[in-house]
Amino acid sequence: MRISTLSIGDELICGQTTDTNAGSIAAALLTEGLRVQRHLTVGDNEPDIMNALDELGRISDMLIVTGGLGPTADDLTSRAAARATGRRLVINEDARAHVRLISGKLDSLIVCPLSDKQAMLPTKSSLIPNPNGTACGFQLMHNGCFMFFMPGVPSEMTVMLRESVLPFLLERVTRKRVIRCVTLNVFGPSEPEVDELLLGIARPELGLTLGICVTFPWMRVTLRAEADHADAAAELLSTAAHTVRERLNDYVFSSGDCSMDAAVAELFRNRDLTLALAESCSGGLIAKRITDIPGSSVYFLEGVVTYGNAAKKRLLGVPSGLLDTKGAVSSECASAMAKGVRSAAGSDLGLAVTGIAGPEGGADGKPVGTVFISLAAPDGCWTKRFQFHGSRDEVRSLTAWTALDWLRRYLLQRTVS
Amino acid sequence: MRISTLSIGDELICGQTTDTNAGSIAAALLTEGLRVQRHLTVGDNEPDIMNALDELGRISDMLIVTGGLGPTADDLTSRAAARATGRRLVINEDARAHVRLISGKLDSLIVCPLSDKQAMLPTKSSLIPNPNGTACGFQLMHNGCFMFFMPGVPSEMTVMLRESVLPFLLERVTRKRVIRCVTLNVFGPSEPEVDELLLGIARPELGLTLGICVTFPWMRVTLRAEADHADAAAELLSTAAHTVRERLNDYVFSSGDCSMDAAVAELFRNRDLTLALAESCSGGLIAKRITDIPGSSVYFLEGVVTYGNAAKKRLLGVPSGLLDTKGAVSSECASAMAKGVRSAAGSDLGLAVTGIAGPEGGADGKPVGTVFISLAAPDGCWTKRFQFHGSRDEVRSLTAWTALDWLRRYLLQRTVS
Repeated sequence: MRISTLSIGDELICGQTTDTNAGSIAAALLTEGLRVQRHLTVGDNEPDIMNALDELGRISDMLIVTGGLGPTADDLTSRAAARATGRRLVINEDARAHVRLISGKLDSLIVCPLSDKQAMLPTKSSLIPNPNGTACGFQLMHNGCFMFFMPGVPSEMTVMLRESVLPFLLERVTRKRVIRCVTLNVFGPSEPEVDELLLGIARPELGLTLGICVTFPWMRVTLRAEADHADAAAELLSTAAHTVRERLNDYVFSSGDCSMDAAVAELFRNRDLTLALAESCSGGLIAKRITDIPGSSVYFLEGVVTYGNAAKKRLLGVPSGLLDTKGAVSSECASAMAKGVRSAAGSDLGLAVTGIAGPEGGADGKPVGTVFISLAAPDGCWTKRFQFHGSRDEVRSLTAWTALDWLRRYLLQRTVS
Repeated sequence: MRISTLSIGDELICGQTTDTNAGSIAAALLTEGLRVQRHLTVGDNEPDIMNALDELGRISDMLIVTGGLGPTADDLTSRAAARATGRRLVINEDARAHVRLISGKLDSLIVCPLSDKQAMLPTKSSLIPNPNGTACGFQLMHNGCFMFFMPGVPSEMTVMLRESVLPFLLERVTRKRVIRCVTLNVFGPSEPEVDELLLGIARPELGLTLGICVTFPWMRVTLRAEADHADAAAELLSTAAHTVRERLNDYVFSSGDCSMDAAVAELFRNRDLTLALAESCSGGLIAKRITDIPGSSVYFLEGVVTYGNAAKKRLLGVPSGLLDTKGAVSSECASAMAKGVRSAAGSDLGLAVTGIAGPEGGADGKPVGTVFISLAAPDGCWTKRFQFHGSRDEVRSLTAWTALDWLRRYLLQRTVS
């Protein structure tokens, strides 16, 4: 089963809007074990659309098209589809009834004026209902390829895909094989290190593949099992996932869609501990990520962003002498900050970071990217120096990621640092 | 000039990651008056990559390829490029020197180990330098088509595009018309309001077009002038930009690539005033955005994230009685927080926000999205209630945007609120 997708729109090909339809169609198909092979984008331009339909039609069994079905003059998909497949464009009575029904239902603010243009479909095509808008979807068969046309508005397209296109596809697919996926999220090692640690796990000849996708500064390891039966696929996957977890161990911070922030939040809820933060170079980024999660007020008591030395002394009780002799970017200052914020807030944990995010401010022995992280807890205080590399944003991001990973490891009762 | 782009990656074709490279390349080319005609995506699969290069190569004068240049086994682009263009894959000495140089600079935490795989390029190709990573870009000419290959990491690709690919392209383009663009960044009114305010400014028949691109919660108004000569285009543009500024007035917070954060930072540097922040519902997001800007330590003294009432009392001196009678989400609490942080930090300005970001925590009379913003300054204290709508992230984002806009307006000596 060769499947292609086609997105149509000047706003896409010009880069004004990011196309999310191609990805969401591919993801929805993949959960059913169907893989998109190629995705094409062209502008609102009749010859380009016709060429695209012709080329993709010839190499695909299924072609899913989005965009260009609106009421305005630059929406050309229906006409191009008719011409590319040698049909005429005629009023489709089902489509006309649909446009009138939906126009009547929707508010005048968001509705397109009632227009017969949207009810003009190629001959020998059938309507794909769109419960959320006036644009009519349609499907037709041309030279052995099923072509599905849907509007580009993601909220409309998604429903039509789920309610009409996918069921139609699945009925016609005689799937010999079942596909299952598992994703593990990893922070710490580099991509080649992960690659080496996971050597030999992929067994393409058995239908088990492994992909590593880096999203700075973390990565996703995706296992994909393909087998004749669901049981076989599940077993292949569970054995492989177990091995990946064993080899990567603490580097795996979550699975599926669970972010580092959500993983830390979940641990806080389970452990019944409270947190206070003292941030210097990260400037509030850690507090922002902690409070991104609803319900964080249960364990997060307060945070201070002590950019100046005066604030470090007054809010955290860092001694003047220490700042004078060791400097604000030092192991001693970081642990004084962590202990200081823990004691001031009366929290179980106090986490502090101080460093030089750059691009200015580096010095001999303390270049840009020098960061100290300290965690004060009932059972001790740990402090470590890191040397990060990259832009100001990257140094700050690595600082926040590493600090959150420390919290995660502490809450899991693993060694920090 | 026919231009195509090709994105390569299993994570893209499977819908795990949304491809932003195609859009950002198209947008960068468009500001130079160059239009991408088609964009294709395929997976990490040698036959698919070879077919794509072959097909796009035949119909394009320029082909810009991203992805698949990493050090791991599933990065196949270089080999596929060599085979598709009938070349051998050999060690490129420039590339080897580059990989070693960059590997040496980066920390082992985020670096790939020195790997000759990334220095293997097709014969008769030349290196595209990548200042920010080990993956080597390269370019070659095949059957009359210039092909450019860059890594898929957006931060690396963007720099390579700007510094190497675009200048190379522009040298070879003989443009008949001159195109100039101006972008104004707008916060406050809705898209239809802006649309109405700007009615009649676009004059497509004279070569002047106007586009509005909404990026929640702000928007970009882009004017584009096309003329026979640079002078004519510049004049068309400057007259139109003047009219847009007149009509949108204070809603325009910057032009070009200057963010709201950078605009506020610039004003702080010019006005020689200092700032302290007290955040409740925004949880550090405003401090994070203020400190995103290098050099912010000059005017930003400190921030506190007072999630709990205890912190509001201890750090900001908000009276217990006020919290009991008016509640933490109240106009009175917001101004007490702003005055409190200003006095504690000894800053010129104190900015405070308190509200309900949701999804839980709403109450009668104070639904989710209720936010109070207060600004305490030497010449007075202003406090206002806002009712924002949307998800937790959207409410927090609107809170931070509005607070930064208040600072901008105060620093410009305009009326806040």
